[in-house]
Amino acid sequence: MLNFELKNPTKILFGKGQIDNLNKELPKDAKILMLYGGGSIKKNGIYEQVKNALHGFEVVEFGGIPANPEYEVLLQALKVIKAEKITYLLAVGGGSVIDGTKFLSAAALYEGDSPWDILIKSIKTEKGMPFGTVLTLPATASEMNSGAVITRAETQEKFAMGGPGLFPEFSILDPQVVASIPQRQLANGITDAFTHVLEQYMTYPVGGYLQDRFAESIMQTLIEVAPRVIKNPADYEAAANFMWSCTMALNGLIQKGVPGDWAVHMMGHELTALFGIDHARTLAIVAPSHYRFNFEAKKEKLAQYGQRVWGITEGTKDEIAKAAIVKTEEFFHSLDIKTTLSEYTPDFKGTAEKIANRFTDRGWVGLGEHKNLSPANVQEIIEMSY
Amino acid sequence: MLNFELKNPTKILFGKGQIDNLNKELPKDAKILMLYGGGSIKKNGIYEQVKNALHGFEVVEFGGIPANPEYEVLLQALKVIKAEKITYLLAVGGGSVIDGTKFLSAAALYEGDSPWDILIKSIKTEKGMPFGTVLTLPATASEMNSGAVITRAETQEKFAMGGPGLFPEFSILDPQVVASIPQRQLANGITDAFTHVLEQYMTYPVGGYLQDRFAESIMQTLIEVAPRVIKNPADYEAAANFMWSCTMALNGLIQKGVPGDWAVHMMGHELTALFGIDHARTLAIVAPSHYRFNFEAKKEKLAQYGQRVWGITEGTKDEIAKAAIVKTEEFFHSLDIKTTLSEYTPDFKGTAEKIANRFTDRGWVGLGEHKNLSPANVQEIIEMSY
Repeated sequence: MLNFELKNPTKILFGKGQIDNLNKELPKDAKILMLYGGGSIKKNGIYEQVKNALHGFEVVEFGGIPANPEYEVLLQALKVIKAEKITYLLAVGGGSVIDGTKFLSAAALYEGDSPWDILIKSIKTEKGMPFGTVLTLPATASEMNSGAVITRAETQEKFAMGGPGLFPEFSILDPQVVASIPQRQLANGITDAFTHVLEQYMTYPVGGYLQDRFAESIMQTLIEVAPRVIKNPADYEAAANFMWSCTMALNGLIQKGVPGDWAVHMMGHELTALFGIDHARTLAIVAPSHYRFNFEAKKEKLAQYGQRVWGITEGTKDEIAKAAIVKTEEFFHSLDIKTTLSEYTPDFKGTAEKIANRFTDRGWVGLGEHKNLSPANVQEIIEMSY
Repeated sequence: MLNFELKNPTKILFGKGQIDNLNKELPKDAKILMLYGGGSIKKNGIYEQVKNALHGFEVVEFGGIPANPEYEVLLQALKVIKAEKITYLLAVGGGSVIDGTKFLSAAALYEGDSPWDILIKSIKTEKGMPFGTVLTLPATASEMNSGAVITRAETQEKFAMGGPGLFPEFSILDPQVVASIPQRQLANGITDAFTHVLEQYMTYPVGGYLQDRFAESIMQTLIEVAPRVIKNPADYEAAANFMWSCTMALNGLIQKGVPGDWAVHMMGHELTALFGIDHARTLAIVAPSHYRFNFEAKKEKLAQYGQRVWGITEGTKDEIAKAAIVKTEEFFHSLDIKTTLSEYTPDFKGTAEKIANRFTDRGWVGLGEHKNLSPANVQEIIEMSY
C-alpha cells in the first residue's frame, strides 16, 4: 500500500426530504448566489423545493451553466458575485454546475491578475468562497471532492483544477431527484461513475487489499442497480445505491494508497472538446482500447476484476482478463452506450493524430499510472477506438 | 437505504515515516499535552520518534493512561491541562489513550459544574480542545471517529460519550508500529475491528447494497491478512491493510444509511467492567450467542455474510446462516481468542442475572437494532455464552 493523506470535510445529507434541511446548513447572514444549469430544475420541482428551503435568505440566481462548464459563462457569474457582494455559493445541479461553482469559489477570492491563471497555471486553491450543493444528477462525485473540470469553448480545451479549499461545505443528496433524470443522463452517470472506479483500480497490484475490495464493491453495486435505475428511475432503493455509489466512486477514498491511471479521462476530454460527445460516452469509447493496448501492464488487475466483479471463473489469467474487457463493453452496451468513435461522428478519421499532436504541443507526455504512455501510444489507442 | 448525515473532518496521514510530519499538523504556538499509556512507546521507539518530531514545541507529558481509560486518572490529566495552560492535546497510543484524550478534550472546555456530567448526562460535545493522535495499536478506529468509552473504576461502569467536536484534527497511522505489538493485542485488534463491522452489518436488509459490500470488504480483508499479521507483524503489507481496515470499520462510513445493533458491545462492556476481560474478547464471547438468540431476526444478513464473506454455497438459507456463526467462532479461535465466559473466569455463575439486573437498574431496556431486547433476553444471551 502506498502512503497517503486523506481529508474530506464535506458534510453529506443523504435521503428523502433532505432538501428541506438546506437552510440549517447556511450561515444566517449569507448572501447567496444560487447557480444552476439549463433549467431542468424548474421542470422537475427541485427549483421550487430549494427556493422554499431558502425562505428568509437573500438569494440571487444565475442559471444557464452549460454541460462542460464554460469559462466565458462563468465569467458572467463572477461579475454577479462581485456586483452583488455575494458571500456564499449554492450549486443546484450535476457535475457541470458544481464544477463551475468550484471555479467561481476559487475565482471570487483569487487575488492574481486574471482568473484564467487558475486554470492555465494549475493554481491550487487553499481557500475559496464557501459553497454548498444540491445534487440533481449522480455521476461525477464533484459534490464530495475538491476537483473540477472547466472548458474554454474558443480553444476547445478542458482544464482540471482544484485544491483543498474547494470541498463543498455540504452536499444534499436526495435520491428522489433520480426519478426525473432522462435515460441518456442516467446511462451517462452510471458509465461515468463506473469508469471513475476503473481509473483508480485498473493499474497494478500494490497490496491495497481494502481499497481494491471497496472499488470492486462500487462496481458490483453499479452493475446490480443499473438495470433497475434505467428501467424505473423512481425505484428509490436502486436510485439511492446508484447515487451513493457515484459519490463514493470519486470522493477520494478508493484512490488513497493505490496508483491512479486517468489516461482514459485525458483522452476522453479531447473527444468532448473536439466533437462535443458526452463526457461519460468518451470514457466508454476509450477505456476498452486503453485496457487492450496496456494489457500486459494491467492484466493482474484485469483478471482480479474479471473474477471478483464479473464472476468469471473459467480460463487462464489472460483469458479472464480479456473476458473482463468484453464484459465491460457489454455493460456499457446494456446502458445503450456505444463504445466506438465512429458510432458518434462520421468525421472520426485523423482524430487520433490530432489528439496526439495536441498532447505533444502541450508538452504532455507520460500518461497512465506508469506515466509512460507517449503521444504516439495515445494515437494508437484512439485509433483502436474508431 | 435509511437517511443519513456524514461528516468526518479528521485528516489521516497514513504510511511509512508519517510520524515525521507531525510538526506540520500542529499550530506553531501550541502548548501541547502529550498523553500516552503504560510506557510501551518508550520501548518500541515511538516515543523517541514523536519527541523528535515535536522539536521546537512546548510539550508537557502525561503517561500512565490505563486500558479502559479511568475517569479518576483522567481527572489528574485535566488538572495538568489547567495548571499548565495547555492548548492542544496529542494522544500517542491505542483506543484507550485516544478515548481518554477525547474525554479531556471535552472536559477542558466544559463549562458545567463537574466533568462527570459529560458522562452521566450524555452531554454531546460540540466543541472540544483541539487534539491529534499518533496511533500505536489498530483496533477501535477512535483515531477517526468522535466517540469514546470511559470507565469509572469505583463503580465498575463504562460510559459512552462523544459529539461532533471530538473528531481528532489529524491522526497519524504508520503501519510499522504494528511490528512491535504483542500477539495478544494483535488478536484483540483484529477481533475488535471485525466485531465493529458485525455490529453495523448483522441486522436486517434495508437495501444498503453499497454499505453491505463495504462492510463485507472490511471483513474479507481482515480474514485475509489476520494470519499474516499474527505470524509476522512486521509484514508491512498485511499490517497496512489491518490498520486501514480497523479505521474504516468504525469511522462512521459503513454505518451510514443502515441500522446498527451494538447489543454485543453493551453486553461486552459489562463483562469488562465485572471481570476486567479485554474488550475485544468480551465481544467474541457475546457475539455468537447473540446471533444464535436473534437468529430469526438476523438470518437474512447472516446468510448473506456466510455466502459473500465465507464463501459458503451449500445448504438452505438457514443452514448457511448457522454455518456463518460457526465460521465466525472459528475465526476468533484461529486468533487464539476464546469464545465462552467460563474460559476466562471460574466465577461466571450468576453473571447473566447480575448484568440483566444492572440493565434493569439503569432503566436500559430495548437493546439491538429493533430496540426490543429486554434484560431477560440479555440474561439468556449471556447464559448461552457461559
